[in-house]
Amino acid sequence: MTASKNGGGAMRILVLGGDGYLGWPQALHLSQRGFEVAILDSLERRRFDLLHDFDSLVPIASPQRRQRAWREVTGRELGLHVGSTSDYDLLSRVFREFQPDAVVHFAEQRSAPYSMVDREHALFTMSNNVLGTLNVLYAIREEAPSCHLVKLGTMGEYGTPNIDIEEGFIEIEHKGRRDYLPFPKQPGSFYHLSKVHDSHNIMLACRIWGIRATDLNQGVVYGAETEETELAPELATRFDYDHIYGTALNRFCCQAALELPISVYGRGGQTRGYIDIRDTLRCIELSILNPPESGEYRVFNQFTEQFSICELAERVAAVAARLGLSASIIQLDNPRVEAEEHYYRAAHTRLQQLGLEPHLLDDEGLASLIRRALKHADRADASRLEPTVDWRQTRNAMTRP
Amino acid sequence: MTASKNGGGAMRILVLGGDGYLGWPQALHLSQRGFEVAILDSLERRRFDLLHDFDSLVPIASPQRRQRAWREVTGRELGLHVGSTSDYDLLSRVFREFQPDAVVHFAEQRSAPYSMVDREHALFTMSNNVLGTLNVLYAIREEAPSCHLVKLGTMGEYGTPNIDIEEGFIEIEHKGRRDYLPFPKQPGSFYHLSKVHDSHNIMLACRIWGIRATDLNQGVVYGAETEETELAPELATRFDYDHIYGTALNRFCCQAALELPISVYGRGGQTRGYIDIRDTLRCIELSILNPPESGEYRVFNQFTEQFSICELAERVAAVAARLGLSASIIQLDNPRVEAEEHYYRAAHTRLQQLGLEPHLLDDEGLASLIRRALKHADRADASRLEPTVDWRQTRNAMTRP
Repeated sequence: MTASKNGGGAMRILVLGGDGYLGWPQALHLSQRGFEVAILDSLERRRFDLLHDFDSLVPIASPQRRQRAWREVTGRELGLHVGSTSDYDLLSRVFREFQPDAVVHFAEQRSAPYSMVDREHALFTMSNNVLGTLNVLYAIREEAPSCHLVKLGTMGEYGTPNIDIEEGFIEIEHKGRRDYLPFPKQPGSFYHLSKVHDSHNIMLACRIWGIRATDLNQGVVYGAETEETELAPELATRFDYDHIYGTALNRFCCQAALELPISVYGRGGQTRGYIDIRDTLRCIELSILNPPESGEYRVFNQFTEQFSICELAERVAAVAARLGLSASIIQLDNPRVEAEEHYYRAAHTRLQQLGLEPHLLDDEGLASLIRRALKHADRADASRLEPTVDWRQTRNAMTRP
Repeated sequence: MTASKNGGGAMRILVLGGDGYLGWPQALHLSQRGFEVAILDSLERRRFDLLHDFDSLVPIASPQRRQRAWREVTGRELGLHVGSTSDYDLLSRVFREFQPDAVVHFAEQRSAPYSMVDREHALFTMSNNVLGTLNVLYAIREEAPSCHLVKLGTMGEYGTPNIDIEEGFIEIEHKGRRDYLPFPKQPGSFYHLSKVHDSHNIMLACRIWGIRATDLNQGVVYGAETEETELAPELATRFDYDHIYGTALNRFCCQAALELPISVYGRGGQTRGYIDIRDTLRCIELSILNPPESGEYRVFNQFTEQFSICELAERVAAVAARLGLSASIIQLDNPRVEAEEHYYRAAHTRLQQLGLEPHLLDDEGLASLIRRALKHADRADASRLEPTVDWRQTRNAMTRP
């Protein structure tokens, strides 16, 4: 399995949202492996930082400087288009001219707290994600019908059912009959809902138009470095520690570095799937190299381990102490509405069957995250760590006056 | 159970989409029973007819003339607001000022073929329905938090699974554990998808905001007359026979009246739930009179019988022959992508438990529909009966050049 097509020439990959935390290292990873890569990104994530005076803890270069740095370091070219999936004229032109063999779709508003700020943020999330993905499906069907859609979903689509979570579908026996049906979804925010809607929409598009799609229900991603981003400082990807875009683990590492109490929301029994950023890159590469049939809609659960929030907090505290930092854990009222003690066991075998060899979370990985936060501690704004979005409210701190 | 509140005074009901095929007779029915009723409608359905030279087979009066006729005939007042659920300023003002006890939400693009015309029609459907319903949820939460949302969904959300369909949720046993989970959805058009998305969104809003909601998964509604619409010609509701908004049964009756072949798509084993329009009115009244608890999301399947398309075609042909009309049945290639032979058995007991006494489809009901079509046969445009929207295409006859 290589980046070359049967007919010769490199496979062409379009990375939507290719300027983001994962989209950027994904584009580099695929480019380094010999795929021909183009990025389309609205820069909406950077605009949010401008609007609210947020910033990545690790400084990141502009899209154009990143593109130039990649060329200088590797001699490889990355296509770069600035625009949104909501702009169908642009999107369809890029599909028509680039004729991608696969499109990796990261171009979604990806924060649950963002989606719960207020009505405007909820509607933006729904509209950007659901209508944007519909546009992608139409662009594939109209401009590049054999293009493989590799779509980022989330493990959060499933919620926390009291049965084992399977990969997208479940065999149900009911009143003496059987069927293999979409796994019931119980998402916990308008963001997670938007991904559930995408999944349903993509499933229909595969059925009626013969589109081929891989829906990757991804766990929480951690890690800030990949082989390619380490090649030059301008290639770094973002490190979000704030209460809107930062994951709990990033927040914990940042709190540890700043010697602030590590803050757990509620009882901390919330258990989720996690994955190393390097494994994310590999999972998507494996999906591209092993495409589904025309008309096939398949779902992989893209994570490698599961942890509760309390376990993570305790591990971060222990590693921080070993690094000589004073570490404590506090419990805050949970701004989210979610089960804080629950059963959780989710299948995640299909990507390993395709060849994924997981990097598991170890103390060295945690230490490296904390050291990275320490290195850039002067850029941290501790007020950005406080939760300000309450699921129970319809207007929160970021609501326009 | 009456239309009066505990504290005295009539219950106030806001009917969104109250100018439509069902919304209008629903508003009259509730008004006649002593509820205080206001309508909000965008008139989008009428605009579609203007754009495409379509029309209801039965002539309908303007919203204002309807309102006046109702006052003249019954002495009762109906509030009327022209606007869309996408206009949050208007929507929230109506909720704030009217303080409805329940909102009946018919304000959705309701045609599957419409949603499959092309990208623009798909996006309009998603945006109008999903974002519009989100706005309704925010308006309830922000302006009238104890208002009961009575939302029209569709039996089409379930698709045609190989197991019995339950009412919204299903008990699943899996690997030795059990949970009561949302019934898996397999909708067959972007319209049906939009209703699935609504259902998921409403479920979350109930959970996080304490909203009370009844989601009515309605079958195909038939019938053109209700007690109230018969009180004056200006009170008639629309009769759609065209390939975009007409149901198969309306098309069959119209074909019979025009002595055109009754056209079945594909093999005709497509089986669905059906309900008489008078039962729809009563189901919604029963839902209003028996509201759920704060925070409760409940689902009723709102239909009374199930038929296959072939059964319906044969029954219409037989009744037409008895009326002296020459009736034949032909089979057309199916423009939809759907199972044409399948298992179908769906639960529908909860509304009967609340007191619904079904009107079942009988030959007299079919004869009355055919006679109604005969009476207005001079208004029929036979070309409007032909299917022009193919699910497999992304651009169909109504696509803008």
